[in-house]
Amino acid sequence: MGPLPRTLELFYDVLSPYSWLAFEPFSLSVFAPALQVLCRYKNIWNVSLQLRPTLIAGIMKDSGNRPPALLPRKALYVKNDVRLLGQHLQVPIHLPKDFFFVVFEKGSLTAMRFLTVVKLEHPELLEKVSRELWMRIWSRDEDITEPQSILAAAEKAGMSTGQAQELLERVSTPQVKNQLKETTEAACKYGAFGLPVTVAHLDDETYMLFGSDRMELLAHLLGEKWMGPVPPAVTARL
Amino acid sequence: MGPLPRTLELFYDVLSPYSWLAFEPFSLSVFAPALQVLCRYKNIWNVSLQLRPTLIAGIMKDSGNRPPALLPRKALYVKNDVRLLGQHLQVPIHLPKDFFFVVFEKGSLTAMRFLTVVKLEHPELLEKVSRELWMRIWSRDEDITEPQSILAAAEKAGMSTGQAQELLERVSTPQVKNQLKETTEAACKYGAFGLPVTVAHLDDETYMLFGSDRMELLAHLLGEKWMGPVPPAVTARL
Repeated sequence: MGPLPRTLELFYDVLSPYSWLAFEPFSLSVFAPALQVLCRYKNIWNVSLQLRPTLIAGIMKDSGNRPPALLPRKALYVKNDVRLLGQHLQVPIHLPKDFFFVVFEKGSLTAMRFLTVVKLEHPELLEKVSRELWMRIWSRDEDITEPQSILAAAEKAGMSTGQAQELLERVSTPQVKNQLKETTEAACKYGAFGLPVTVAHLDDETYMLFGSDRMELLAHLLGEKWMGPVPPAVTARL
Repeated sequence: MGPLPRTLELFYDVLSPYSWLAFEPFSLSVFAPALQVLCRYKNIWNVSLQLRPTLIAGIMKDSGNRPPALLPRKALYVKNDVRLLGQHLQVPIHLPKDFFFVVFEKGSLTAMRFLTVVKLEHPELLEKVSRELWMRIWSRDEDITEPQSILAAAEKAGMSTGQAQELLERVSTPQVKNQLKETTEAACKYGAFGLPVTVAHLDDETYMLFGSDRMELLAHLLGEKWMGPVPPAVTARL
């Protein structure tokens, strides 16, 4: 038996496009159904990955940070940056037309509570449901706040209508609300001022890395090799 | 004759530690004198690199952005991030003890004006003098605001005392002041809200990339290969 894998916690919110850009290199390819059984780095590196649905609005409030898009020049930069990174990382990301309404008015509270209950009840589906919500908001400019939007994402991820409805009814229970709050507080305790945040637990050291652009540094800390956003082990099976 | 190289403009300020982290992968290794004749990527990729000394205080004012270190959680993160990136990128970076005094009280106005006149009169020494100033402020916690500090950096970079003194006398001339102002305005026109900023001019497209963590994306845009922060061509000659 090899050594126990190191643990990575990925704190994310589907309202955060950079969370998606961090999520995919760890995760499944979104392009071809044939790739749905393959992983990118999570199976190449000797790591155990814990997905942790978090509320970005809670992080911003607790840290006193301001969303970058509120500064006009940063908003313009993020628009271009996300487009270029999407191409490079092979994630089909496109900003919604009315970015400000989607991010600052509609938000992600119900969606993140839904992912919280998915994690509690069907953790094996968390990755897929998260991705379907990202595909809605950040790829096809579709709503993620209405019950039917969340149900559609859950069904596309492989859940039955009955299962999805049952989980949706639980999003307002104290258990689910408190769980999302606790996860958000855990990210804050690690020093989060935005998302995504990756916390790497390696031997006696814990590292908190912010953003989607610390993958090469993460590889360095893990003593693993960074082979670009789509590692050859994935490409070879295309 | 091959195709004309693409042009990269690197806008930087020695007051910005991330500017240094962006500068080195383009540039010479700082570790061994034997490496001073070697380059990292600027000679591996088919690119022409223009170093552009810029005033970060001017960029922050013009864009309305706030320095990240003013948010306590970001300040703490930057401290750890810079340490880890320095190890990974092989840049001997250490934050000064009194970060806030050094960055927000002392600043870099004279140092950046000095680099502006170095670029005008001795462009071949700009890289070395910039590095010596970074080594002072971000590696050895030494001053970069007093005349003798700037002269010491210039001499360490290979300038004679007479040469260095002559240039230092010119930092307050309208020509030098205006040149630094113009460069800072040029960065703002490209959409800068901080430094470093790399502007890549490729065929008919111009891309503005912010920060020290877009090197892999830059390689992707150039159609070149990113081989990590210390490419094998450099390591092989160690």
